[in-house]
Amino acid sequence: MHFATPPVINTLKQPTSWAWVEQALANLDTILLDHSHCERKAAGVALNLMFRYPSNTQMVRMLTAIAREELEHFEQVNQWLERRDIPLGPLSSPPYGAGLKAQVRSKEPERLLDSLLVSGLVEARSHERLGLLAAHLPDPELADFYRGLMASEARHYGTYWILAHTYFDNDIVTRRLEELAIMESELLTNLHPEPRVHS
Amino acid sequence: MHFATPPVINTLKQPTSWAWVEQALANLDTILLDHSHCERKAAGVALNLMFRYPSNTQMVRMLTAIAREELEHFEQVNQWLERRDIPLGPLSSPPYGAGLKAQVRSKEPERLLDSLLVSGLVEARSHERLGLLAAHLPDPELADFYRGLMASEARHYGTYWILAHTYFDNDIVTRRLEELAIMESELLTNLHPEPRVHS
Repeated sequence: MHFATPPVINTLKQPTSWAWVEQALANLDTILLDHSHCERKAAGVALNLMFRYPSNTQMVRMLTAIAREELEHFEQVNQWLERRDIPLGPLSSPPYGAGLKAQVRSKEPERLLDSLLVSGLVEARSHERLGLLAAHLPDPELADFYRGLMASEARHYGTYWILAHTYFDNDIVTRRLEELAIMESELLTNLHPEPRVHS
Repeated sequence: MHFATPPVINTLKQPTSWAWVEQALANLDTILLDHSHCERKAAGVALNLMFRYPSNTQMVRMLTAIAREELEHFEQVNQWLERRDIPLGPLSSPPYGAGLKAQVRSKEPERLLDSLLVSGLVEARSHERLGLLAAHLPDPELADFYRGLMASEARHYGTYWILAHTYFDNDIVTRRLEELAIMESELLTNLHPEPRVHS
């Protein structure tokens, strides 16, 4: 077993445990399939925000770019699934997504702030975990693919922070991000028994 | 007033009336804004089908391409809105979409068949109407843009027919398409008072 230095992402309160890396590498086909679902879900999240806030021009423009890129990644991950003879199919979601969604307050403008910050946190965690896969995958070509994706994921969480700061005051963003980031790490404290990108 | 030959699309039971063309040309800014909404909604429809049928590999692949292209068009229409100083914003939907959605049976596999055929009909009607805009718009550059979009819309309804024929027998598809196409034309018999792509 070798420990490489994981990418440190300041926003995340706790780094991913080594137990997740071991679980992911031991169940790579499931992780790849779940990753495909994650890209499609990420496109869906961006599209839903575009639907909900049709007048926020900057947001619509930036989220369109994210949604397009997530769909491109979805296509690419699906090509990897095909190469490895992994059939497309449903997968149950880990509690992570629902746990974060439960933190989104229902009243505006809090709903918008929380939605942007939660999406940013998910992208930040994805960035960290895809980086861990890139560092530890035995297949160098697949590792390269994951290294390539990391840059986009970093841009995506950057976009969500920019949008939060566009529509909200700095200290409101900082305070709420602090609360949500603690929650996000807590949701991952106990490794979910089913291997997932966010188990 | 000049009557140009409208594009004839075999699937559609009734061609669009001249009254729609007049309404659209007299309310071009609203039509452009509604067109932006239509592209985003079309991407959402494709994405929802991908969510609902994650195991149908061919469908997922073909719908990913559609969703990516609709988002690209969404971006392009929004650039036109910006050029013409039309702010992004919400618009009420005409009864067309909900009327068609009400025809989708809730039980599988009928739900899949109806969803594919309804999506195909919407794309066919969009193709016809964007063609009418291309033929009659006074701004030659905007007309060119619409001519460019028509080819994609034609490919999109082609994709929905191919998918229907992939998962269902020929005569089942033909019979149901006949019923839905009659309904689709009926929904447009009376011009909706608010100018929309599908008014």
